Amino acid sequence: MIDNPYYSQDNHGPWQVFDAGDLALEAGGVLHDLKLAYAVHGTLNAARDNAILVPTWYSGTSKVMEQLFIGPGRALDPARWCIIVVNQIGNGISSSPHNTAGAQAMAKFPRINVGDDVRAQHKLVTEVFGIERLALVFGGSMGAQQTYDWAVRYPDMVARAAPLAGYARNTDHDKLFVQTLMEAITSDPGFNGGNYRSHQEVAAGLARHAKLWSVMGWSTEFFAEEAWRGFNFKSVEEFQAKFMDPFFTPLDPNSLLVMARKWHDGDVTRMTGGDLAAALGRIKARTFVMPIDSDMFFRVADCAREQQLIPRSEFRPLHSLGGHLGLFGFEPAFLAALDANLNDLLALD
Amino acid sequence: MIDNPYYSQDNHGPWQVFDAGDLALEAGGVLHDLKLAYAVHGTLNAARDNAILVPTWYSGTSKVMEQLFIGPGRALDPARWCIIVVNQIGNGISSSPHNTAGAQAMAKFPRINVGDDVRAQHKLVTEVFGIERLALVFGGSMGAQQTYDWAVRYPDMVARAAPLAGYARNTDHDKLFVQTLMEAITSDPGFNGGNYRSHQEVAAGLARHAKLWSVMGWSTEFFAEEAWRGFNFKSVEEFQAKFMDPFFTPLDPNSLLVMARKWHDGDVTRMTGGDLAAALGRIKARTFVMPIDSDMFFRVADCAREQQLIPRSEFRPLHSLGGHLGLFGFEPAFLAALDANLNDLLALD
Repeated sequence: MIDNPYYSQDNHGPWQVFDAGDLALEAGGVLHDLKLAYAVHGTLNAARDNAILVPTWYSGTSKVMEQLFIGPGRALDPARWCIIVVNQIGNGISSSPHNTAGAQAMAKFPRINVGDDVRAQHKLVTEVFGIERLALVFGGSMGAQQTYDWAVRYPDMVARAAPLAGYARNTDHDKLFVQTLMEAITSDPGFNGGNYRSHQEVAAGLARHAKLWSVMGWSTEFFAEEAWRGFNFKSVEEFQAKFMDPFFTPLDPNSLLVMARKWHDGDVTRMTGGDLAAALGRIKARTFVMPIDSDMFFRVADCAREQQLIPRSEFRPLHSLGGHLGLFGFEPAFLAALDANLNDLLALD
Repeated sequence: MIDNPYYSQDNHGPWQVFDAGDLALEAGGVLHDLKLAYAVHGTLNAARDNAILVPTWYSGTSKVMEQLFIGPGRALDPARWCIIVVNQIGNGISSSPHNTAGAQAMAKFPRINVGDDVRAQHKLVTEVFGIERLALVFGGSMGAQQTYDWAVRYPDMVARAAPLAGYARNTDHDKLFVQTLMEAITSDPGFNGGNYRSHQEVAAGLARHAKLWSVMGWSTEFFAEEAWRGFNFKSVEEFQAKFMDPFFTPLDPNSLLVMARKWHDGDVTRMTGGDLAAALGRIKARTFVMPIDSDMFFRVADCAREQQLIPRSEFRPLHSLGGHLGLFGFEPAFLAALDANLNDLLALD
């Protein structure tokens, strides 16, 4: 185990821990003694029908989701909804390579699929909260992958689904991008096959990984308009050194890799023998598919292809100058448009 | 010196060599005893006014340009035009780190700018051929950078300019992409600061570099439509392993880095104190600016911004499913549209 202060309650809490026990994994094997960290905003009503589930994205935590999406006056208002934010497996807070002791620590942590997260979350939602139906599942990026998986796996349990900037089945192009992210880390000699003593031994690989996020994460127009000046930097070099590098280099490399492999392999058609129309056709939720118009890897066209296969869905693309990292919510108009969509969706029966 | 069979006359010849002598470099210092390799197709007429100059792109050679763009019935028809294809400095055939002996070999090869190439090419064109005015300068990608530099540096010498899929001044976003390409190579321990004994010692870095080219070089739609099937592969993995990897991994790492640094720093405003409007305003050539609509890093919007600053120019975007690597010319319609543009341009006074 490695004590990485980034993942502390001080930084990303408060959270509670659900002891999910042993989880049989889709790809084979068992994840032992799974700890699922979650945070709750608002109160579950007597009918238990006001619950919203928010899974996390790559590198995200329950605190990040709270800060971006939850609050009084927002679509996700704790005064009305009981919002359960759950940290995905491997995100550094729920069970992850660096915070697991013993036989599954570090490089020995097993391969996790998105579906494993969703089955563990199902256990949390039903056993801890006694919820039979979620009013909404909402997630961005890898959170969208989990949202799709929920809607396909448990169609009667998801009343509404709002996948933001993500795919139900990952594309070949996006897989190649994720491979470059993984290879930036694993190619660092300091990575040592996953058995480093500190994430700082992988600093060079993490910095290369951060630069790939700049190239593909933002949009070309973000740079053309020098939108990084809005972050109070004077040059792209300073933006990279003082924003992108500090964002990614404190993270645990094995943690990023568990998430990246999940992202890479995200595919709801594992439930339908590879048939995407069959998988998405199972969805009973009112679904708003929300790609970001400038996203370089979760592309509008690819999201539209999926939306067309979902029975009760609408296509609700969002504008951002930021590309995929418009998810960072630096544009008030982006968050307002997102909330308007979520309010529309929550108003549907 | 390293004998790399990729760069042989058998593979990429025939070419001739111009001994350009010592070249004072924009970034400082001197490149000694520059050998500029070039190939000529067609015959210079008595008026010496039918010459077309074609510089090469990143990884490109005079043979590649010939195969893609030159031939009977093409816009660049040797029956009418005298087409001079010149290998850029550092491309592995003209003077490059691995084919240079002595004090400037390998890691000691100096930093080259696009303007250095253009001044050396000017010497070739005037001293060897006695040409006072080029009917056309045409180049794609880094060839477009050289085309722009020619038109700005020698406005009275360039009657027509056809920059295809490239910028006059590189963008911040594209610089970040080029940095990831360079870092994929230099981070390989086998690179050894540029002093490897064989490019095969850098095979892992070259393969990561090839994967970055897949992510950014092609378009997302290329993968969505599985256009790689047109190359007779059965999976993306096979396409990567049998096309992209074999394309890039035989190349010399230092050679790629010399070109990448040039590409990164490409900027005609070095001639006008950073003023893009002033630089492009100098151009007297009839100019067709031709971005590729699906290009992920030489973007249509950024090319359009430059075109608007060029006095006698037209915006002539080309369609390809292939993104930037539409330049590989795998679509007959792309090459036909390009030739139509070039014919239109060559018909202008």
